[in-house]
Amino acid sequence: MARKYHWAFLLLVAVIFMMTGCSSQDSEKASTAAKTGLSKDEISNEAFKDLFPLQYDSYMKNAEDTEDTKYSGSVKRPKFDHDKEPYLPVLFNGYGFALDYNEDRGHVYANEDVRATLRITDKSIGSCLTCKSTAVPHLIEEMGDDYWGGSFNKDVWPAAEAMGHSPIGCSDCHDPETMDLRITRPSLVKGLESQGIDVSKATKNDMRNYVCAQCHVEYYFAPENGEVTFPWSEGFKPEDMYKYYDTVAKQRGFDKDWVHNVSGTPMIKAQHPDFETHIEGPHGEAGVTCADCHMPYERADGKKKISSHWWKSPLKSMEASCGTCHSNRDLDDLKDRVEKIQDTHMTALHAAEDVSISSHYYVNKMITSGVSEEKIKEAQEHVRKGQWFWDIIAAESAAGFHNPQGALESLKISSDESNKAILIATEELVKKGVNLEELKAEIEKVKKAVYDEKDSTKKRDYATNDYFPAQQPK
Amino acid sequence: MARKYHWAFLLLVAVIFMMTGCSSQDSEKASTAAKTGLSKDEISNEAFKDLFPLQYDSYMKNAEDTEDTKYSGSVKRPKFDHDKEPYLPVLFNGYGFALDYNEDRGHVYANEDVRATLRITDKSIGSCLTCKSTAVPHLIEEMGDDYWGGSFNKDVWPAAEAMGHSPIGCSDCHDPETMDLRITRPSLVKGLESQGIDVSKATKNDMRNYVCAQCHVEYYFAPENGEVTFPWSEGFKPEDMYKYYDTVAKQRGFDKDWVHNVSGTPMIKAQHPDFETHIEGPHGEAGVTCADCHMPYERADGKKKISSHWWKSPLKSMEASCGTCHSNRDLDDLKDRVEKIQDTHMTALHAAEDVSISSHYYVNKMITSGVSEEKIKEAQEHVRKGQWFWDIIAAESAAGFHNPQGALESLKISSDESNKAILIATEELVKKGVNLEELKAEIEKVKKAVYDEKDSTKKRDYATNDYFPAQQPK
Repeated sequence: MARKYHWAFLLLVAVIFMMTGCSSQDSEKASTAAKTGLSKDEISNEAFKDLFPLQYDSYMKNAEDTEDTKYSGSVKRPKFDHDKEPYLPVLFNGYGFALDYNEDRGHVYANEDVRATLRITDKSIGSCLTCKSTAVPHLIEEMGDDYWGGSFNKDVWPAAEAMGHSPIGCSDCHDPETMDLRITRPSLVKGLESQGIDVSKATKNDMRNYVCAQCHVEYYFAPENGEVTFPWSEGFKPEDMYKYYDTVAKQRGFDKDWVHNVSGTPMIKAQHPDFETHIEGPHGEAGVTCADCHMPYERADGKKKISSHWWKSPLKSMEASCGTCHSNRDLDDLKDRVEKIQDTHMTALHAAEDVSISSHYYVNKMITSGVSEEKIKEAQEHVRKGQWFWDIIAAESAAGFHNPQGALESLKISSDESNKAILIATEELVKKGVNLEELKAEIEKVKKAVYDEKDSTKKRDYATNDYFPAQQPK
Repeated sequence: MARKYHWAFLLLVAVIFMMTGCSSQDSEKASTAAKTGLSKDEISNEAFKDLFPLQYDSYMKNAEDTEDTKYSGSVKRPKFDHDKEPYLPVLFNGYGFALDYNEDRGHVYANEDVRATLRITDKSIGSCLTCKSTAVPHLIEEMGDDYWGGSFNKDVWPAAEAMGHSPIGCSDCHDPETMDLRITRPSLVKGLESQGIDVSKATKNDMRNYVCAQCHVEYYFAPENGEVTFPWSEGFKPEDMYKYYDTVAKQRGFDKDWVHNVSGTPMIKAQHPDFETHIEGPHGEAGVTCADCHMPYERADGKKKISSHWWKSPLKSMEASCGTCHSNRDLDDLKDRVEKIQDTHMTALHAAEDVSISSHYYVNKMITSGVSEEKIKEAQEHVRKGQWFWDIIAAESAAGFHNPQGALESLKISSDESNKAILIATEELVKKGVNLEELKAEIEKVKKAVYDEKDSTKKRDYATNDYFPAQQPK
C-alpha cells in the first residue's frame, strides 16, 4: 500500500508540475554555474561540439532545407520568386531589396549568405555583419566605431575571418565559461535601456526572449557612426517606432533608408520585428518566450532532454512547442487554427500591399504632371507611412501569428495612409486634367506583368522601371 | 495508510478533472431527465421560482443596473448620450436607430424596453417581439405568418399579454418538464440548417452556445412574410453575411433596411452578431461556449453550485469566468490584456466610423452637384459596404474581444470601402469644379457639432439633417 501511495503521490506532483509548466513566474537569475573549461573569448562553434554534442547536433540541423510551412520556410530562394510576395520589386524599387530579398534560412548559413547577397556592395558598412558572425562582440570591442561604420568588404569581414569566426552560434547567446545565457550585442542593451529596462536585472524567462531579440528586431544604422540602433524609445508597436523615426531619428539626422524610384518618396525599410510583435501579442503578454515555442524540449537520441537548437516554425514541432501548454487541444485542430489566422492575415497583407503600390504610381503621376511640390510632399508623407505600416508586418516572420490583432491594426493603418495619398493625388491630377482611367489601366498593367513574371531575375527588371518611366521630384 | 492513498488518489482525480475542465469533448446529448411537474407549455418565469429558487434569484439579478465596464454595461441610456458612439445619429440617419439606440440592459426588462423604444411604431411587425417575450413560441405556433408579419401593436403584443407571458426567461431555453436545454426559436434551426447543421444532433456543449444564438445574432425580416431570418448560408463572417445580402436576400426581394438620408444609399442595419463573432474567434474555435464565460458556476448563498443566470460581462466575474481555464494567470493581468485588446479595437472602430461618415457626405455632394447616376450608384455601393463592415462589428457586444483579429479585419475592409466611395466622389466632384476644401470643412463642422452635443434629445436633430441639407437621388 505504501508503494501505491508513493506512486499516486508522484503522479500527482507530476500532474501539478505539468499544469504549472506554462506559468511564467520564474524570477530567478540565470545561472547554471557550470564550468566548461573553455576560454571566455571562445567564438568557434566547433569548440563546443565535444562538450555539448546533443545541442551541437541539434544546431547543425539548421543546415537542413526543410519543407516549407504554408507561409514560411528555411529554403533559400527569392521571396518574389513565387506567388507569396510577387510585388516586392515594385515596393522596394530603387533599393537593394528590389534586387535581392531571399527567404531566411538556417543560422549556419549566416556568413555564407551575407557574403552572397547582392545587397552587400563595396559601400556596405561593418554593421551588416552584426547578426551573422560570432566574431562581432570582439570586433566591436577592438574596433569601436571603425566596426560599425567601417568597410564591410575591406576591413570588417577580413578581420572576422582572421579571428576564425563561425556563423551565428553558441557564444552569441552563451557565456563559454558557464553556458549562462548572455547578451553580446550592445544594440539590445541600449534599445531596452531607452525604455528604462535594465538588462542586468533580466530573469531567466526574460533572457529566453532577449537572446533572440539581439537580432530578430527592427533596427537602423545611426547616422553618426553607422551603429545598429533599435528605434524603441517610444514603444514596440508599429506606430511607436514610426513616431521614433519621425522625431528622434530625424533629430539625429536619419530621415530615410532610400528614395523610392517610382514616387520619389524618402522611405524607411523595416526589418524582421519578431520580438516586438511577439511581446505585444497574446503569447508574449502571457509570458511565453521565443524559446518556449521555437526551442522546445526534446529528447535527443532518446537520451538526455535538451532545448532544441534547430530554430524553425513551431508548426514543425507542434507536440513539443504547442502541446505542452495547450494540452487539451487536438494538434490538428490547433494547426488549422494557426493557418486560419495566417490566411486572414495574408489576405489583408496582400490587400494593403496592393494599395501601397498604387499610391507610388499616383504620386509618380503627380510628379510628371507638374503638381505643386507641396502637394507631392503631402502625398509622399502618406506613401511613406502607408508602406511602413505594411512593411513592419510583412518583414515579420510569423504571417501574423505573433500578434494577430496588432498585425491587422497595422495593415489597416497602412491601407488608410496609402489611400490618403491616392486621394490627394486624385484631387490634384483631375485638376490638372489627367485622365485617371488611363493611369489606373497603366497601374493594373504593371501589377499584372510583375505578378505574372515567374523568373526572379527578370522580375528584378521592374526595379529599373522599364514599364513605368519614373521621374524624381526636384 | 489506506486512507492517505485514498486522499491522494481523489486529489489526483480532482486535479486531472481541473485540467480537462477546459476541454470540450463533451459529445453526450443534453438530458437531465428531471421531472418538474410543470406543464410543457409553461411560459411564466414565476412558475419556476419555487422549484429553482437559486437560479431564479440569479436571474432576477438581471434587474440590477450594474456599474459599466470600460466599454459596455447594463444601464439603460442612449448609446449616443456620451462619448462612446457619438456619431450614431449621423450613421443611421433616416432610420429608427438614429432616434433611439440604447445600451442593452438585463433580460428582465425585455418586454418593458421593447414597448418603450421609439423604434416600435404602428407599422412595426410581430417579429419585433421574437426575442422579448416567452409567449413567442406559442404565438408562432398559433398565428403562423400572422405572427411574423402581423401588427405588433394591434395583434401580437395583445396576444402575448393575454397569454400571461414573461420577459425572455426560463422556458425560452429550458424544456419546462425536464429542464433540458432546448431551442424555441425556429429562426436558429433554419439558420443552422442553411449551413448543413442539424440542431437535433447538437451536443450539450453546442447547446450552451445555441440557446444564446437564438437571439444574439444578425438577422433580417424575410420579405415574403416578415419572418426573422439569419443570413448564414454563406458562413458566419462579415463578408459571408454581406455576400448573402448581395445574393440570396436580393433574390428574395430584400435589398435594404432603409435609405440613408444623407447619401441616399440603400443600407443594411446589422444586429448584435455575438454568436457569429464568438464562434469564429479564439475562444469559440477552442470549443468554449457563451455559457462558459457568461454563466460561470457559482455557489449561491454559499450553498449549491449553479450556473449563473445573471448575464453580464465576464470582466465582472473573472475568477469564475476566466480563472477556471486561465488558472495560471493573474486576474488583474488578464483584465489588462482584455482592455488592451478592447482599446486597440475601439480606436480602429472609431477611425472606420469617421471615414464612413465622410463617405455619406461626399456622396451627398455628388447628388447635389449633378454627378451621373451611374457614378453615384457606384459610390453608394461602397458606402453601403463600408458601413456594413463597420456596423456588424460595432453592433457586437464584446468591443472586439470575441474575435480580435476578425473584428479588425472587418474594420479594415470597412475603411477601405468607405475610402473607395470618397475616391470616386473626389474624382467626379473635382471634374464638376466643386471646391473640396469647402466640403471637407463642412463635414468637419458637422462631426464636431454632433460630437460636442451632449444632450441626446438634441443629438437626434442631426437625424433630420438640419446641419447638412440632403437631397435624395432620383
